[in-house]
Amino acid sequence: MSDGMSVAVVGATGVVGTEAVALLEERGFPVGSLRLMASGRSAGETIGFRGKDVTIEALAGADFAGIDLIFSAPGASVSLEYVPRAVAAGALVIDKSSAFRMAPDVPLVVPEVNGDAASRETRIIASPNCSTIPLVMVLDPLHRRFGIRRVVVSTYQAVSGAGQKAGDELIGQTVAILNRRPMPIEVFPHQIAFNCLPQVETFDPGLEGYSTEEQKVCDETRKIMGIPDLRITATCVRVPVVNGHSESVNIEFESPVDPAEARKLLDPMPGIRIVDSPAQGEYPMAVEASGLDEVLVGRIRRDFSVDNGLNLWLACDNIRKGAALNAIQIAERVFGIDPVRS
Amino acid sequence: MSDGMSVAVVGATGVVGTEAVALLEERGFPVGSLRLMASGRSAGETIGFRGKDVTIEALAGADFAGIDLIFSAPGASVSLEYVPRAVAAGALVIDKSSAFRMAPDVPLVVPEVNGDAASRETRIIASPNCSTIPLVMVLDPLHRRFGIRRVVVSTYQAVSGAGQKAGDELIGQTVAILNRRPMPIEVFPHQIAFNCLPQVETFDPGLEGYSTEEQKVCDETRKIMGIPDLRITATCVRVPVVNGHSESVNIEFESPVDPAEARKLLDPMPGIRIVDSPAQGEYPMAVEASGLDEVLVGRIRRDFSVDNGLNLWLACDNIRKGAALNAIQIAERVFGIDPVRS
Repeated sequence: MSDGMSVAVVGATGVVGTEAVALLEERGFPVGSLRLMASGRSAGETIGFRGKDVTIEALAGADFAGIDLIFSAPGASVSLEYVPRAVAAGALVIDKSSAFRMAPDVPLVVPEVNGDAASRETRIIASPNCSTIPLVMVLDPLHRRFGIRRVVVSTYQAVSGAGQKAGDELIGQTVAILNRRPMPIEVFPHQIAFNCLPQVETFDPGLEGYSTEEQKVCDETRKIMGIPDLRITATCVRVPVVNGHSESVNIEFESPVDPAEARKLLDPMPGIRIVDSPAQGEYPMAVEASGLDEVLVGRIRRDFSVDNGLNLWLACDNIRKGAALNAIQIAERVFGIDPVRS
Repeated sequence: MSDGMSVAVVGATGVVGTEAVALLEERGFPVGSLRLMASGRSAGETIGFRGKDVTIEALAGADFAGIDLIFSAPGASVSLEYVPRAVAAGALVIDKSSAFRMAPDVPLVVPEVNGDAASRETRIIASPNCSTIPLVMVLDPLHRRFGIRRVVVSTYQAVSGAGQKAGDELIGQTVAILNRRPMPIEVFPHQIAFNCLPQVETFDPGLEGYSTEEQKVCDETRKIMGIPDLRITATCVRVPVVNGHSESVNIEFESPVDPAEARKLLDPMPGIRIVDSPAQGEYPMAVEASGLDEVLVGRIRRDFSVDNGLNLWLACDNIRKGAALNAIQIAERVFGIDPVRS
């Protein structure tokens, strides 16, 4: 490896980290050298990149000198601890965790929405929550044209967002139920197979009945769109889907809005694909969004219960655009890199 | 069998019909004689009732003379055809299909909400859609106290509502995916296993992008609550859950409303059980609602995006209270029968 940047992926063995390594290769990111870091447990394992095995280093005690760019996807507590050291050593960190997202001096970026906010100067750029990213990609263009008055969103979130063990648990529980055997319940608070859990992440006493995920969707949407007082409320629900988040979105606008007009406005937006012929069975679905770069948007229709209202439905690969892809797109934007489309 | 009413169950082999037969026994309904009717294909089969096998008759050509009460759970087209004949022969029909629900002279009844509308005089009483029933049970008491201004509901509907073959398809697809085999897609328009489908029933050109299910939820809620201009909008979604519908409900009220006040108001309501300690992992879930008579209600919290707003989450056995149980409770109400609780 020569020419190009010195890149590291932290949390390389996780669902998002693994996807980030694959996307760096798929998009021809100018990686001169690649270092992979994870917890000590994974140190010594290897991950393939451009036909070669890259050995995983332990994050603890890692020397960050010489690293230009870090794609960071560990838990928030790990990010809080190591990112300042990496930045002090000269790295630009694009962090997927929630650790720095709401810090006033850290830009929280979805390139299609507020790409101008991304800059090498801050040294830390945060990538939003996997439910927030597809939502703001749809809300922002609509807001610019029609002015959003209020948003009510209910999510249908896949288990992949909760990590590899969560996927194993969904499958393990499913197999156990089909075979009438006792099922493991470890990652999620209750059975997730053939069930819906109105809990994503945790309930903090200060959040007045909202989960941390619900709070993030609202806070992060406001920050990315630059509307601190945006009226938005969320209900976040885990569903027995392996990969791909869906969202039911109700929007009230300042100006009159026609579904056909909204469709026409969203259709050419980068990163959005309209799938909206419900009578022909065409609408966004998690299993079709999974593996795609685009946010699928459909079921766009007038909400007759309010002036200037719309309902719509979206689906998005929460690991790809909802996490790893968005981080890499931030880097492409900051460094002026054109991706190679595979 | 002697003493008691001459009762028939039409559509007796379906998911709802089977549950109705079981509930008649479980609740000690005063059945003097029981006739079971279904399509010709099932004629001659038997279903157990109070320890004896009852033989299924073909509905086509059945003689309804002498039947006091029919629990009717076939498809709407079948109901449309046979119900007038049954009524002409003297039966009171409680019909679960959508055939007569919106007919002005047919009461559409959830006993806890508008039980007074049920009467033997109309000869046909309609039981609402499985998504509508739990929703109105929650909305009605809240409306009486705080006055509802607008409702936004997103559903998470189990496959059992689509019949026995739908349950088989979810399980069949799940097994096929786990074994990496081709999967059957026959009942639903797309893969339902590990997926969410923003389609319940069909899309009619006249409904401006809404599914027939979404239209029913709105129209039926207005009729049952007696508020023809109630502002309500719905997004109905099928999820890979075997049994038990969940709903994310956002409500804007005329008067200020406190979550604790709403909880206290709903708690003693018949047919409602508050499950609302999210920090302790206690909230309504489809797998816990399944098999229960009550609608589980929780995640009750203030919606800060609007004056006088609440969000809540409910779960309900869509085959039981959402269908068969509600029909039997209508009969109990009309005939003044106290159920025997098992």
